[in-house]
Amino acid sequence: LPVMAQDGAAPDPLASWNDGAAKQAITDFVRDTTTAGKPTFVPPAERIATFDQDGTLWVSHPIYTQVVYCLERVPAVVAQRPELRNVEPFKTVLSGDRAAIARLSTKDLEKILAATLSGMSVEDFNADAAAWIARAKHPRFDRLYTDLVYQPMLELLGYLRANGYKTYIVTGGGQDFVRVYSERVYGIPPEQVVGSAGGTKFGYRPDGTPFLTKEPKLLLNDNNAGKPEGIHLMIGRRPMAAFGNSTGDRQMLEYTTAGPGARLGMLILHDDGPREFAYGPARGLPDTRIGTFPQALYDEAGKRGWVVVSMKNDWKRIFAFER
Amino acid sequence: LPVMAQDGAAPDPLASWNDGAAKQAITDFVRDTTTAGKPTFVPPAERIATFDQDGTLWVSHPIYTQVVYCLERVPAVVAQRPELRNVEPFKTVLSGDRAAIARLSTKDLEKILAATLSGMSVEDFNADAAAWIARAKHPRFDRLYTDLVYQPMLELLGYLRANGYKTYIVTGGGQDFVRVYSERVYGIPPEQVVGSAGGTKFGYRPDGTPFLTKEPKLLLNDNNAGKPEGIHLMIGRRPMAAFGNSTGDRQMLEYTTAGPGARLGMLILHDDGPREFAYGPARGLPDTRIGTFPQALYDEAGKRGWVVVSMKNDWKRIFAFER
Ligand SMILES: [Ca+2]
Ligand SMILES: [Ca+2]
Repeated sequence: LPVMAQDGAAPDPLASWNDGAAKQAITDFVRDTTTAGKPTFVPPAERIATFDQDGTLWVSHPIYTQVVYCLERVPAVVAQRPELRNVEPFKTVLSGDRAAIARLSTKDLEKILAATLSGMSVEDFNADAAAWIARAKHPRFDRLYTDLVYQPMLELLGYLRANGYKTYIVTGGGQDFVRVYSERVYGIPPEQVVGSAGGTKFGYRPDGTPFLTKEPKLLLNDNNAGKPEGIHLMIGRRPMAAFGNSTGDRQMLEYTTAGPGARLGMLILHDDGPREFAYGPARGLPDTRIGTFPQALYDEAGKRGWVVVSMKNDWKRIFAFER
Repeated sequence: LPVMAQDGAAPDPLASWNDGAAKQAITDFVRDTTTAGKPTFVPPAERIATFDQDGTLWVSHPIYTQVVYCLERVPAVVAQRPELRNVEPFKTVLSGDRAAIARLSTKDLEKILAATLSGMSVEDFNADAAAWIARAKHPRFDRLYTDLVYQPMLELLGYLRANGYKTYIVTGGGQDFVRVYSERVYGIPPEQVVGSAGGTKFGYRPDGTPFLTKEPKLLLNDNNAGKPEGIHLMIGRRPMAAFGNSTGDRQMLEYTTAGPGARLGMLILHDDGPREFAYGPARGLPDTRIGTFPQALYDEAGKRGWVVVSMKNDWKRIFAFER
């Protein structure tokens, strides 16, 4: 149930946010861009807000959820293509050696993603990914990955939408993967998910029915500079607000906040090991390969007026299932 | 003013359509997909309708409007890049020889499009295209190109939107070009325009301001099989209804109408020389290179249950400026 204000006024739409600079920046931004007559007023059609997903909307440690999906798909792919059985990196994945799997390079992971996310019809992929996301659980929390979305961010999405903002996901993860659950989990429809995207190939089944096959060809690598490029390709407007958590979101925030008028750039800092995970290496937090938040990004945030959200201090609760 | 029904009932939202099979197919489709309880009911979130632009929403003869824009931009491009002055096809365009320009091959036109639609920032392109479209006139009608939109199709777009459909343009033309005027002219926002799209490159101005430069690299050729592929990339759902006018729309209509439930595929036949243009070559109409509607497409429409709209017989008026 929403938390009611003491005086019986409307419930706080950002009830899981502690009072502080971050919450204030959000409500100031919404006030400035939605109050008619203000010089910073933004017409509803131009109210676009973009959100990174992994580490910004849901947990991305110890590894990205989609990578878990792809690793678990390897046996099915090898069953179809036995020639991969003794080829790296598939051999390592099949070995089940967790330490060796954790050491796989980015290039190895790209090979695994390409092999496991292509070659099937769009419908077959959607069905397989939907079935997986409905059952797969996070090793530490023993909960569905879709339960590990951040409650304050769900409230923020809803608050922005209630104020006329169109909310988009702009993720380095696979566009088709995220689209499978984005509407149910975030209230964000497939057409508002921008992500790394492979091509598809139109063809016909033997009975003449047309269908699309997922191809290994990468059309958009939606990370770093690829984020503003993907935003232009898929949305065609500069966002008014952008939310991220790592160096891969830097260019998206730069592009967003370089526009005129009131803009909001916000970065989630994972500084809450007990409730979630602690990593940076900004502010002396442990270093990581997954969702790196370097000190240089922290410093740039200060210079450009971006807001850094401390999960520890700014979030009253992190997950909806917390008491 | 909207035409009032005789009995004082609500005005006909499709007032420029003559009564007949085409108009009936539209209203039947909307009734079937929006009436709660019907087995063909479609939830609002899934109500997607896609429209080709050239020859479906506005005039595309004697040549595509965007090609006119690109041809007229050639002198400005050559002024910046003098090495193109004596190189074909730029030399022919600069000669002003209309017959020679009309004979340029598709490959020549692609070179002209690549050269005139890239190399500038996204903002500079938008400003230039907006200024051009605000002044350029069609040679036969002596009217702005944006006045040459089909009134019955504007009514159809509005009727679908009033019934919860999200309307998209899916054009072989340039995505960025159409986005410049789509909201004003069709009520379709930039993020609902899918078209042939080039890449952009993120970079910084000398003062550190980030910006995007349009690149000549083609990411999506949104014609033929590229239309359903583009729909998957940019929308991620199969449309419920699709509207086109030529062989370039065949795969989009096939993909759309292959889905389950009530689907609508519709093709505009340009059979009205006096009021607009007459071309096919379907049904013995004159042949054309621009927006070809071959007899095979006409026959496929019959087999697949697509509706062919006769501009001559189905449309009471074609343009809003007609008396
Ligand atoms: Ca992230
Ligand atoms: Ca067309």
